Amino acid sequence: MLGAEELFNPESIAIIGASSDPAKIGNMVLRNLIASGYSGNIYAVNSKGGEALGYTFFKSILEIKDKVDMAVITIPSTAVPAAMEELGKKCVPAAVIISAGFKETGAEGTELELRVGRIAKNYGIRVLGPNCLGLLNTANNMNASFTATYPSNGNIALTSQSGAVCSAMLDWAREYDVGFSKFLSMGNKLDIDEADLLQYLADDDDTSVIGMYIEGMNRGREFMKEALKTSKKKPIIVLKSGRTDSGAKAASSHTGAMSGSDSVYDAALRQSGTIRAQNLEEMTDYLQVFSSMPVPDGKNIAIVTNAGGMGVMAADAVSDYRLSLAKLSKETIDKLHEQLPKAAGVYNPVDILGDAPADRFTAALNTVLGDPSVNMLMIMMAPTDTIDIPSAAEAVSKFRDAKIPIVAAMVGGEEISKGSLILRNAGIPIYPSPERAVRALGAMAAYLDIKSSAVENCPDEFIINRDDVQGIINAASAEGRTSLTESEGKSILQAYGIKIPKKELASSADEAVMVAASIGYPVVMKISSPDIAHKTDVGGVSLNLQNEQETREAYTLMMERIKTAVPDARIDGVLIEEMFDGRELIVGMVRDKQFGPVITFGLGGIFVEIMKDVSRGVVPITVEMADRMIKSIKSYPILAGARGKKSADIAALKSLILKISQLSVDFPEISELEMNPVMAGEVGCCAVDALVVIRREKK
Amino acid sequence: MLGAEELFNPESIAIIGASSDPAKIGNMVLRNLIASGYSGNIYAVNSKGGEALGYTFFKSILEIKDKVDMAVITIPSTAVPAAMEELGKKCVPAAVIISAGFKETGAEGTELELRVGRIAKNYGIRVLGPNCLGLLNTANNMNASFTATYPSNGNIALTSQSGAVCSAMLDWAREYDVGFSKFLSMGNKLDIDEADLLQYLADDDDTSVIGMYIEGMNRGREFMKEALKTSKKKPIIVLKSGRTDSGAKAASSHTGAMSGSDSVYDAALRQSGTIRAQNLEEMTDYLQVFSSMPVPDGKNIAIVTNAGGMGVMAADAVSDYRLSLAKLSKETIDKLHEQLPKAAGVYNPVDILGDAPADRFTAALNTVLGDPSVNMLMIMMAPTDTIDIPSAAEAVSKFRDAKIPIVAAMVGGEEISKGSLILRNAGIPIYPSPERAVRALGAMAAYLDIKSSAVENCPDEFIINRDDVQGIINAASAEGRTSLTESEGKSILQAYGIKIPKKELASSADEAVMVAASIGYPVVMKISSPDIAHKTDVGGVSLNLQNEQETREAYTLMMERIKTAVPDARIDGVLIEEMFDGRELIVGMVRDKQFGPVITFGLGGIFVEIMKDVSRGVVPITVEMADRMIKSIKSYPILAGARGKKSADIAALKSLILKISQLSVDFPEISELEMNPVMAGEVGCCAVDALVVIRREKK
Repeated sequence: MLGAEELFNPESIAIIGASSDPAKIGNMVLRNLIASGYSGNIYAVNSKGGEALGYTFFKSILEIKDKVDMAVITIPSTAVPAAMEELGKKCVPAAVIISAGFKETGAEGTELELRVGRIAKNYGIRVLGPNCLGLLNTANNMNASFTATYPSNGNIALTSQSGAVCSAMLDWAREYDVGFSKFLSMGNKLDIDEADLLQYLADDDDTSVIGMYIEGMNRGREFMKEALKTSKKKPIIVLKSGRTDSGAKAASSHTGAMSGSDSVYDAALRQSGTIRAQNLEEMTDYLQVFSSMPVPDGKNIAIVTNAGGMGVMAADAVSDYRLSLAKLSKETIDKLHEQLPKAAGVYNPVDILGDAPADRFTAALNTVLGDPSVNMLMIMMAPTDTIDIPSAAEAVSKFRDAKIPIVAAMVGGEEISKGSLILRNAGIPIYPSPERAVRALGAMAAYLDIKSSAVENCPDEFIINRDDVQGIINAASAEGRTSLTESEGKSILQAYGIKIPKKELASSADEAVMVAASIGYPVVMKISSPDIAHKTDVGGVSLNLQNEQETREAYTLMMERIKTAVPDARIDGVLIEEMFDGRELIVGMVRDKQFGPVITFGLGGIFVEIMKDVSRGVVPITVEMADRMIKSIKSYPILAGARGKKSADIAALKSLILKISQLSVDFPEISELEMNPVMAGEVGCCAVDALVVIRREKK
Repeated sequence: MLGAEELFNPESIAIIGASSDPAKIGNMVLRNLIASGYSGNIYAVNSKGGEALGYTFFKSILEIKDKVDMAVITIPSTAVPAAMEELGKKCVPAAVIISAGFKETGAEGTELELRVGRIAKNYGIRVLGPNCLGLLNTANNMNASFTATYPSNGNIALTSQSGAVCSAMLDWAREYDVGFSKFLSMGNKLDIDEADLLQYLADDDDTSVIGMYIEGMNRGREFMKEALKTSKKKPIIVLKSGRTDSGAKAASSHTGAMSGSDSVYDAALRQSGTIRAQNLEEMTDYLQVFSSMPVPDGKNIAIVTNAGGMGVMAADAVSDYRLSLAKLSKETIDKLHEQLPKAAGVYNPVDILGDAPADRFTAALNTVLGDPSVNMLMIMMAPTDTIDIPSAAEAVSKFRDAKIPIVAAMVGGEEISKGSLILRNAGIPIYPSPERAVRALGAMAAYLDIKSSAVENCPDEFIINRDDVQGIINAASAEGRTSLTESEGKSILQAYGIKIPKKELASSADEAVMVAASIGYPVVMKISSPDIAHKTDVGGVSLNLQNEQETREAYTLMMERIKTAVPDARIDGVLIEEMFDGRELIVGMVRDKQFGPVITFGLGGIFVEIMKDVSRGVVPITVEMADRMIKSIKSYPILAGARGKKSADIAALKSLILKISQLSVDFPEISELEMNPVMAGEVGCCAVDALVVIRREKK
């Protein structure tokens, strides 16, 4: 990230708006920088002059002789543009604008913020904020913020869009003695955002896990790109609030209406290799384990407990979070038999009984950790009247440096907290319940998958008929239309090699039979008339015609019916259409504001409308992703051939998804597309209907 | 509950197995009884004599002159039967058997336990345990257990099947200063179980909320009966572990295979008005709020926060837990405008800003609590550098006695914990996250529904043909069969007034046409031959015959096909069956070990098999329950008439469920029944297939 060195490791910092009043932010920042032990040069600037904490204020940054790497701005928002101009003239490459009073206050503030942005761009100043708490870098003892809570040195980098979340996280860290490498409050994200920071943090050796609190994003695709790269190097835990976005935006298609912003975020976050925390508790639970324990090699968990009765609850959790109970070897079990009392449970969960003294913990843990089938370990400790919790916890804390991740569920209250403190100080993650301990290990297992997954394959580019599509779009656009006709939509699909039903007009029974034969039975017959909109209502549709006789009869019957129902209609003839047998699907594409084209896939009809059983992928879709999209819907067994049927042509469906992915990239003009239904046959698939919406031309 | 007075309020207690060794349970119990301040008479009994803590041991309970109301037994299991005999002779009405070494150790222990049970029954002794921690009653200062942790006086009654859970709960209670009325460890539940205790606790004035940790039940139906009654008086929070019972038992039907024990428990717990906690954390979260706050009158929540940035997370939680954000009145909003700084948020969530001093909390809370649209209140507090948490918490604690439930989300760590302590001491429930605070209020709202729901209606008894059903069962039983034929099954349904398709044999095309006309078109034709098992394979089934011509043609074609395919088959003719049009459903009944007959309802085919979209009800099903079963499946809109269709006949489906409910009660011999499919038409419904399994006669 450009300007990152100056932002995170400035050799000198100027505080614009320094103050001698301890209640002013300009004073707090100065105080915090000194208190944290920042060793670079500090310059205090205040247009009125003055002094505080041993620093005489410069009246302008331009008065400072030496170079300034970074400025922290705490003056009222209206004065910020002028200050930025001065920063520019002084060639300051990075600024943290703490001042509020910008976009968050309405139209006027937004205008002001845009102005600041233009100045920054003009001079090439990178900006964090405005309306933020500031940033902390423990590697160089820099507390460039107005929070006095300075965390200890650690390996977690945290970025947050909310100051309150920052404060709560710092307070949490203090209690749990969790350390941070970097700590950033992002405020309004005028310039620096999550994507920038991921780019920087990916290669920051001080950071081994990244936590992000996100309320919204502006550059979703850049975020995804950076997250995908970074997540191979270190885990990214994302807490995205605003999950229950119930007001889905108005959209023309079924799948469009279902693509509420949270479902798209969810797909995008998963697709980019991040681990999504549902709430602050999950976030801190995950950060705790990732910051102190190695990533496991597998998903088999062993449980050692002094509370056998809680084993059932632990087993519930193991299954909930998709881990497996490790199957201990015979050797391990024999050894446990020797070491433990007769009443103990030597199978996993290993129950060392309520009266377990420290050395029994030690023996059991040594034995279980020696079993190669164990990938992760949870220790469960509950208070009993016969256990000395502190000494047991001391014994457990000796295993802090085991090669596999170890966590402890400390269940109880006052008594057990004595043990919790000992484990916490030793750096073993502690959780108040077996569920949360197992959930944290579950997140580690999820990261194992993310880290070890191969780089996915981009599909080969499909050969398409570009001109056809452009022609259709241009023509509709010229007519001022944004909705394409079914026939136009289908032509676009055809240009991408997507099969659509064959069809041909026939104006007599003989011709109908001839056409049907050339298309191949079974066929559908539809009346073709400029005067008839609702064909079915007037007997103008006849399905599943199997042979010549049926076709002939249908023609005669249809003409009679139409004559009775709509005597004055002009009749062009009948349209004979191929009938493609198979399972009904919906494939749709909408263009999300943050993430661009998003493809939705699901079984048609009630599966989408009522069961909401769909999968989503953000474009570009990889070959593997297309496969996952198809296989991750709950109703996939129906496609794969449940109830004695043969499987649908999954390869054809994959290809269909990839073609739509390419189409959405090739033609940004297409804002929405839905094929409803797609018929998925045993061989091939066919788009029976097409709804295409294009963007209104900007004048 | 018989013997409850002697168990909970004994005037005298004998400890069988008293000991002078402080490490022995017999000593601990004596010590604990003295320490807790029990004011009744205590007798210590040890066959070897001796003395401890000022008590000289009797060598036998029979040596005690005065009456003994309750005995606590701590001697080795093998000596327990003899001790129980002595208790019987002494006419002791209640015993707590702490001793382990019974059922939990295997066959021998089980035999011993049954023996103890017989002695108890013989003498009319009520037994708690064996293999338990004992019991505590804070109302009379009785710690008749071997745990030294004695909780403070409170209104929670807790029963647990696990000693470890007891210990953890007591430790939790000590930290959170939560008090208990009764505290019971149930051990092996030889005699006294959850149903007994509910019966007692329902009318226990010291108890206003009941918590139960359950691993398994023996008398499920009695539990349900007592829970249903008790839950109208006070909330029952149940933590049932063993949720992920993946090994569903072998069953003949689809619905049977899906009725894993946990899904049945889930249905039974819901049906009996309990609130199910998913884990210990939820249990303690719920107990906290129910024990200290009134049940709300509605589901509208107001949020007052000093951390606006966390409002989104709180709103997510409000939606997750099915509450609504209260819509504040104009008056309230105006008043907040006056009271709060300009930057504050005066709409719900009310954001009083990060620097809120105590009096701003007081003003905002007063105003919000004055709004009649607010049914419950969550206060969210997060640390900032500008807030004095203790004084803010003091201000909040003054609202402890508001008329509506108030909870606090205290988000952070060390700093915020100072405020947490103040609120905790004031009796305001505190939670470490907005999610958990809102979830607890959600449980209260759920209890509001339980408490306010009207007593449900038992259906009128259907008039049935009992003899027919008994005859069919007896005949099959006499032949040693447990599976009934389709035809037998359908006859049973018919005896209960459930419609089955009309059918009749026809042995010529003319006869087929005649029969079809009398049944009514459309019909199905099936070959009838004792030599043909798989009719479809040989062209022996013809569906959807619409008229005379089609019936005639089908007959001729079928005879030709059969002659070719199975030349030697004896042909009785064809079976003409009514074709009942509608949506496919499955209705099944299995007999659960704990809860008796359980009815499963769902849409047929893939909806059951793949989407697992079913609802369950434990018999007897009320009229309202039948309605809920139908309407609670996810695919209900399909029945109600999605996609332009008319609604299925819901009344007929309700009646069908109620008939099966009655059938399962009338004929305990029927162990499993499934109608797959039931066709649900716009008028009426029809069971097209019937699978009935009866119990093997016990010799």
